[in-house]
Formats: sequence, C-alpha cells, structure tokens
Amino acid sequence: MSGRTSGRGSVEAMSDHGVRRPDHATRRAALRDLLVENGVDALLVTDLVNVRYLTGFTGSNAALLVYAWDSGEDRTLICTDGRYATQVAEQVPDLRAEIARASARRLVELAGEWQTGRVGFESHVVTVDQHRGFLDWGTGLEFVAVPGLVEQQRQVKDDYEVDRLRAACAAADAALATLLERGGLRPGRTEQQVARELEWLMFEHGAQKIAFETIIATGANSAVPHHRPTGAVLAAGDFVKLDFGAVVDGYHSDMTRTLVLGEPSDWQRDVYQLVHEAQRAGREALEPGVACAAVDAASRSVIEQAGHGEQFVHGLGHGVGLQIHEAPGIAKTGTGTLLDGVAVTVEPGVYFPGRGGVRIEDTLVVREGGPELLTLTTKDLTVVD
Amino acid sequence: MSGRTSGRGSVEAMSDHGVRRPDHATRRAALRDLLVENGVDALLVTDLVNVRYLTGFTGSNAALLVYAWDSGEDRTLICTDGRYATQVAEQVPDLRAEIARASARRLVELAGEWQTGRVGFESHVVTVDQHRGFLDWGTGLEFVAVPGLVEQQRQVKDDYEVDRLRAACAAADAALATLLERGGLRPGRTEQQVARELEWLMFEHGAQKIAFETIIATGANSAVPHHRPTGAVLAAGDFVKLDFGAVVDGYHSDMTRTLVLGEPSDWQRDVYQLVHEAQRAGREALEPGVACAAVDAASRSVIEQAGHGEQFVHGLGHGVGLQIHEAPGIAKTGTGTLLDGVAVTVEPGVYFPGRGGVRIEDTLVVREGGPELLTLTTKDLTVVD
Repeated sequence: MSGRTSGRGSVEAMSDHGVRRPDHATRRAALRDLLVENGVDALLVTDLVNVRYLTGFTGSNAALLVYAWDSGEDRTLICTDGRYATQVAEQVPDLRAEIARASARRLVELAGEWQTGRVGFESHVVTVDQHRGFLDWGTGLEFVAVPGLVEQQRQVKDDYEVDRLRAACAAADAALATLLERGGLRPGRTEQQVARELEWLMFEHGAQKIAFETIIATGANSAVPHHRPTGAVLAAGDFVKLDFGAVVDGYHSDMTRTLVLGEPSDWQRDVYQLVHEAQRAGREALEPGVACAAVDAASRSVIEQAGHGEQFVHGLGHGVGLQIHEAPGIAKTGTGTLLDGVAVTVEPGVYFPGRGGVRIEDTLVVREGGPELLTLTTKDLTVVD
Repeated sequence: MSGRTSGRGSVEAMSDHGVRRPDHATRRAALRDLLVENGVDALLVTDLVNVRYLTGFTGSNAALLVYAWDSGEDRTLICTDGRYATQVAEQVPDLRAEIARASARRLVELAGEWQTGRVGFESHVVTVDQHRGFLDWGTGLEFVAVPGLVEQQRQVKDDYEVDRLRAACAAADAALATLLERGGLRPGRTEQQVARELEWLMFEHGAQKIAFETIIATGANSAVPHHRPTGAVLAAGDFVKLDFGAVVDGYHSDMTRTLVLGEPSDWQRDVYQLVHEAQRAGREALEPGVACAAVDAASRSVIEQAGHGEQFVHGLGHGVGLQIHEAPGIAKTGTGTLLDGVAVTVEPGVYFPGRGGVRIEDTLVVREGGPELLTLTTKDLTVVD
C-alpha cells in the first residue's frame, strides 16, 4: 500500500492543540507576488471562498481589495454589510473593514478614488452584469481579467489546512466505523435511512457540516455514479456504495467505499479487485511534478487493460479543500502538474448499468516520497454479515 | 391573525395524492412568450436551478437552449455529460438530449450551425470568461444579455410548487413540535445539539435536505441575526431563536421562532410583542399589486414608531422556492410589485447586541383576499418550562 498515515487522536484532541491557526497575512503576501507577476496594481476578490481563504471571513456578502503595492497590506480592504459588522471585526482584526451593502461596488468606487490604475478581477466568477457595473463605477480604472489566481494558490495546502482536512477525514472514517459496528448496513434498511444515520454519525464525530449530498447506492443503483439515496432496500448479495464527507472548519473530506452484503459472487470479487488495483495505481502515481493527466492514465490504464475502459465514465479525481471540488482536476483532459502539498481525491470506478458498480475513493495530500493518506478506512473487500 | 391555512395530512399523504406533477412544457411555453417580448430567437439557460425549473433535470452539469420560434418546443435541446445520460432520459423524456461535457459550448455550437440569430443569455449568472467563450464558439450568432427572465417567471408558483412548499413547511413545523414535546430545548443543552436534533427531526418528518445552515442562538447570541450554532449552553431566562428549513422535491421552507426558557422578563415581553405586531403588519400588507417596498414599510414602521428602527438591521423578507433566497426581495430598496402566487418570507427582527433579540418569520403565498400561511407553528409567545 502506498501512502503514509499519521498517528493522531480524536477530532477534538487535534483542534485542542491550538498550535495551528490559519495565517491569512502570509496567504495575502503570497498572492501579492502573483499580482506583481500579472502586472496588476490590485485584485478585486469577489468569490466568497477566496475571501474566506485570504481573510477568515465567513459571511455571505463580502468583497476584498488586495493591493500589490509595497504598502499593499496597509491598503488592503474588506467590505461587507451591516449584518456582519461585528463578525468582520472579530474574524478579520488585521484588515480595515468598510461597511456597505453593495460590497464590490463600494470597493470599486474606492479604488477609483485612490487612482489604483490596473485592477485585476476574477473573470471566472464575475458575471457579465457585474463587470458592466465595474466599468460604470470605477472611474479611471482599467479592469484586467486574471482568472483563478487565488484558486491556483489554494491548491497547495498549508499546515493548518492539512490539519483540518485530517480532522474532516477522521470524522468520516469514525462515522463509517460506527455505522458498521452498529449493524447499520443490514438488509432491509433503505438507502435513505443509511444516509441519514451516516450523516448523523459524522456530526457526532466532529463534523460541522455535511460536505455534499451523501450517496448511498445499493444493488443495481451502485452502477449509477451519482445516485441519490432513495427508499430502495438493501438486500443480501448487494454491492453498497457509500460516497460521503464531512466539513471541519470549512475543509471537506471525500471518501467512497463499496461493500458487499453477504458472500460476494465471482463477478463482484473480480470488479472489486480491478478497481482496487486501479485505485492503488492512481495513488502511487501521485508525486510532485507529475502531470495530472498522467495520474489519470496510470489508474485508467489498469481498467482499460482489463477491457473495462468504457465502464469508467468519469475523471480520476479532483482537488479538495474549502470546496469539495477545486483545482486541480485529475482527468484525461487535466492540465498542469502536481505540486507538493496539493490535496486530491483518487476515485476510479467501474459501472455495469442494471447490475452494479464499484468506486473506491481516498483523499490524499501529495508529498515528496509518497502521498499522505487522509481517509484511513480499509480498502480491502469488506463483507458485511 | 391574517392568513388562510389549508387542511392537510402528513407530508407523505400529500405526495401520495400523485395528482400534482410539475408541468415543464407549460413553463417553457410561458418562457417562450418572454423571449418573443425580448426580441430573441432563443435563450441559452445555464443556471442549473433554472434548467431544473424548465425541465426537471437535477444533475450538476447542464445547459438548455429554448427556442422562441413556432417550432420552439421541437427544437429545444438539453445538454449534459455522460454521467447523466440515463438520468436525463428519465427526468426529461419530452426533450431531445445532447451528451457533451462542455454542455453550454455544445449548445452554442449547435445554435451557430442552425443559424439561430439572436441568442439571449443569462448575463446575471454567465461569467466574463464564459461569455468570451460564447463569442468564440457561436459563429454568426448575436448574443443578447437578458438577465433574470426565468427568475421573473419563477416568482409565481404553480400548484405543484405550492404543494411542495407546503410539504417542506409541514416538515419544519412537525420537527419543531416534536423537539418541544421531547424537551429538546431544556437548559444545559448546547446550540449545536439543538441544531442537530432539529435537523434530524426534519428528515424524520419528510425533509430530503436541510434548506440552509440551521440557526440556533441562545441568550445574547439571539441578537446576532445570522448566528451559527456553537457550544453555547441554553440557560433559564434566555431567548432562543431558531431559524431553520426543510427541502422537499427541491422546494425550501423558511421559518424563525423565538422562544423564552422560563418566565419572560418585562423587556423580553415588550420586544416580543413589538416584533409580533410588526410581523403581523407585514403579513397583512401582502396583496397582489402591492409594491415590495410598501410591504417592508408596513412592518418596519411599527418598529420605527416604537423607537427601535435602528435595531431592525435587515430587509423584511425574500422570495422562496427552488432557492432559499430568490426574487422578489422585500426591503426598503425592493423594486417591483407582488403578484398572485408569489411565495415570500416575512421576517422582521429587533436585536439588542450583548443582550438578545427576537425574529419571527413565516413563509407565505400571496393571494387575492389574503396570503396563504404555510408555516403553521404558533407565533404566540411560547414559554418553555
């Protein structure tokens, strides 16, 4: 098995260490270098996840103006509305805060007053209507499309982020272990019942939110890659596919396991073993400097050589962090290469419509010398009696 | 009390009636009229909620091209990727489906091949980068910004939608009733424990998802309009504010109640009564043809006359349906007028920082002769012993 595991206690014990807090000033300093590279005087950040990453602010209305100049940190300004006046003071004590309902508009107006020059904007999230507003409000400014700068930066997780990803993965691992101990996967229960119990257990084990709509798929439903839980009843002989995750301090875990209820048949053993091998090959390909498309190919070729390439109908994985899906994409068409500290999923699947399917997924952090495995539940074929 | 209530059974009983299914073809026909009014030959719908409203498709990648021409329904085309090939065939049996990963791009290319002419696009959700793509891919097309057409249409709920909103509100009502019966609001419990139990109970009463992050705020925390549940412990004498909702078949409920643990003090009675009166005034102002800003004013003036206008720091309400917040906004700056069948919240609040606050919120449907109240939990001051 590839992957290192780190010794650790419960979710609570980890967060009690208290040594790790996000260092937003360091993140903003790193962004400032990107702004200089891109030849802009400031970046208007309107994506709320990016605002959170750069400041810690979690409200539902905010914009941030990060200056590239030498005095950049002093000038940098966050804006939110009156509902969040107290919250922004608490969460962002190190930046000036402006209070206005039209937060982006207010910052564009100030950038104009301050004769900022070239203002970068997040053209991958700013709408056509918002952009028209910028041009109206920002007297004398030149707006420059610089898509994905903060997302590029967010790919590489700092120590705090890896710690929180570990905690989120630990909550999911513990929830599944408890579900199995309790006999929660017995024949006769419905997919929906299992989904609700698994989510409840994640909360009990430290999750603050559910990372995405839990997938519980039994029998033929396991062949549907993104099946939503229904009233379908678990039956002996079924594959049961569970794809679920927890959120801790904004960080998402993502794990899939496929189990068998009772003794597996030969075709179930064969497809499980194939996906298991393909998943291992994908994990083992994770190295700094490796092309994302090459990681996909390392896993996919195992399945293709077994003649089931057409049953593997999606990409191999994706970045994960403050969002459940973020950069980089690990797929045939994936661009770019992995860096040390990138958090990704590896999740090959083989699906036989009408019959059943298997997906196995881990969350890992790319490291020199081999990835760190964050989702620790066994991937050996698990037979639920 | 204003508002009509409708006799009804459990969530399950309602959905078993089976008489009500969404009529997507009628919705598309109504949209076609808007396209003609706006002088476009087709609308490229890329907002996923709007795609769902117009087709029933719930996957995470889709685009829809609705033609305004006489042959519009025959030409109209949905596109999604291979993961959803089976699902789109099941959920959208009445439209042609195209399978491509870059769904919007594929439809733009086809619109170009078909010499569509003027193609409207959703400029309030299409990003600057996507728009640049449209111009590259759509040979010979003229792209016209037509923001918010489907959102405008979605304001007025059809019978199916009101039925599903009723079911979502019923799940929330039943969950709160059960929580109180069980003594779930007793001193000593934490905000987080109450939030998890309330959510669990909503699932037990038919919710398929939670509508938004549940707000449980006790004591001084009740003065924070959008407080997130913490480990804070409920204590005798506290206001406890609960703002929560369920999702049934995509439709969201939204309700806030503020209760008192033990005997209320005089200031608690006074502020509760004030908000209660203001909320009633807001409900009673709901009539087809009334300006949204006038509804806000009807409620706000009650609070202003009592000298607490500055403690009511947000708008009065918002539309609710496939999204928790949708058009129309009911605020000082709200534009437009209410129509028959619009679903909205009415939720005034008065907040004293460091001390406590009260918000009371219902979900209602605007009707000639008075609104239909969907959230049926009592608004009388409830003292939890």
